[in-house]
Amino acid sequence: MNKTAIGIDFGGTTVKSGVVREGKLLARLPPLRTHDFAGHDSLLAAIRAAIEELRQQHPEVVAVGAGLPGLVDSINGRVWQLSNVPGWEDVALTALLEEWTGLPAAIDNDANAMAYAEWLFGAGREGVNVVCVTLGTGVGGGLILDRKLYRGSRLGAGEIGQMTIDPKGAPGQYGNYGALEKYVGNAQIAERAQTLYREAGLTKTPEECSPLALEKSARAGDPVAAKVWEEIGFHIGITLCDIVWLLNPDRIVIGGGVGRAGEYVFGPIRRVIKERTMKIFHEGLTIVPAALGNDAGLIGSAALALAKATMPNDP
Amino acid sequence: MNKTAIGIDFGGTTVKSGVVREGKLLARLPPLRTHDFAGHDSLLAAIRAAIEELRQQHPEVVAVGAGLPGLVDSINGRVWQLSNVPGWEDVALTALLEEWTGLPAAIDNDANAMAYAEWLFGAGREGVNVVCVTLGTGVGGGLILDRKLYRGSRLGAGEIGQMTIDPKGAPGQYGNYGALEKYVGNAQIAERAQTLYREAGLTKTPEECSPLALEKSARAGDPVAAKVWEEIGFHIGITLCDIVWLLNPDRIVIGGGVGRAGEYVFGPIRRVIKERTMKIFHEGLTIVPAALGNDAGLIGSAALALAKATMPNDP
Repeated sequence: MNKTAIGIDFGGTTVKSGVVREGKLLARLPPLRTHDFAGHDSLLAAIRAAIEELRQQHPEVVAVGAGLPGLVDSINGRVWQLSNVPGWEDVALTALLEEWTGLPAAIDNDANAMAYAEWLFGAGREGVNVVCVTLGTGVGGGLILDRKLYRGSRLGAGEIGQMTIDPKGAPGQYGNYGALEKYVGNAQIAERAQTLYREAGLTKTPEECSPLALEKSARAGDPVAAKVWEEIGFHIGITLCDIVWLLNPDRIVIGGGVGRAGEYVFGPIRRVIKERTMKIFHEGLTIVPAALGNDAGLIGSAALALAKATMPNDP
Repeated sequence: MNKTAIGIDFGGTTVKSGVVREGKLLARLPPLRTHDFAGHDSLLAAIRAAIEELRQQHPEVVAVGAGLPGLVDSINGRVWQLSNVPGWEDVALTALLEEWTGLPAAIDNDANAMAYAEWLFGAGREGVNVVCVTLGTGVGGGLILDRKLYRGSRLGAGEIGQMTIDPKGAPGQYGNYGALEKYVGNAQIAERAQTLYREAGLTKTPEECSPLALEKSARAGDPVAAKVWEEIGFHIGITLCDIVWLLNPDRIVIGGGVGRAGEYVFGPIRRVIKERTMKIFHEGLTIVPAALGNDAGLIGSAALALAKATMPNDP
């Protein structure tokens, strides 16, 4: 059977699109920058043109999928609200994609698309119960449970970034207090790093405190950067311990900027989980960096569209 | 089809047995007190005799199930370790039950049996994603996800009592620090209540600080007891918030002594979850006391045995 689909990945600032087959990108277009478009209608028109261009290159495409940050009703195909893109409220995106293309379409939360891609084609392959975490501006997650994408009763599951580190901590933007995102979101990491550098008598810009910069500094032997990673790993590890006690997964996949910091962050995460859970919980568990990088959203949204087209009750 | 089975419920100090059909107890025997038996073999012989007696009363029985506290391998039918019953290590209980009776048998963790019973016949009925918490000496849990009992990769899922309230809190017996069980286990509740009474100039025995006694005191207008329940509800609520963000369930069922305290504990739990999660997470969620009381383990273990006998790949 032909298994080629278009994937569309809505990021915070760009919209990427490409043609995917069996987890591989056959073609991709230059990303659309959302701020170049005056509004919702002109952005949609540009996405429609991109899809047409990709179909001309690959007429064998049989489905279209989109992954979006925010509240997405994957069953009814509606986008309720998009993080970072004002004006997107209650858009029946699945219906629009189907009308434009005449092909079956599917939309989902971006973290679900990422988790699905990593499970089918990436670092979660062959896992039975796989927890995916993406760390960036915010912290998101997706769950594969008993070999199916788990969405929850209102399709909101996987909000790992909103889980509590300190019930008396600072309020976050979605209602919880002292949530993981308040400790390991990119802005919070930069702020914490600046504080620790200041205590060491050094002044650093936020740019010098990005995950990428902190990883380079740690690699170069900078003890402050190493301490920042240690703290980040501790906080991620605490939340993952809770998930391990609750769900007893066999695989945890960590993606996004923080996930690329290698042993500086995976070391403390693994240590915390080993120290704070029982053997049967951690001995069969592998904790690995995401494998598909920035393409996970594209690959996953295409794969979800194909899955919906071929087995409507799954995933 | 005949749907009658024997259920056996291993508690901390007693072993209960009965005949169950469609979630109703048709017969039950007086509980065996584990401390009356010198060892593992004599207790097993007494359980075997109980099963024979129940089968004489109800020859229509077609399966036997047992729920046990501790590490249970439900797939291979082995009990690795029993909380509170020394000498139970690596017992092939399913094979024994089948050998004794010639009937199909199943064993499972007691919290899973309770969750399964509440979902099929009790307070979790018709739920799609149901989280069950039992609060007693310890704090356990069971998960029904997408209408199936979720066990996790090493069959350890649902350890809600081990989830973190305070990462810097006191160590618990299973490895974690500041876990929920350290705040709301019966002994911890009694200790905390004694402290609060002492601060109010009152001396109370641990018995006067049991969940049942504290509920009566709160009902009688005792402000200290009310404060204890407020704190208990807060801590349970914090852990449940994390589960709500992660799993987005539609039903939470709370059983055990604490679960019977009514609004004194459900009030704060509901308030914390409403305050600390987004609307789509809490508006479709009901939080209810368990309905089957002390019979949930018996009913659930019988139901799990029937389910295994009739659909071996479920639940």
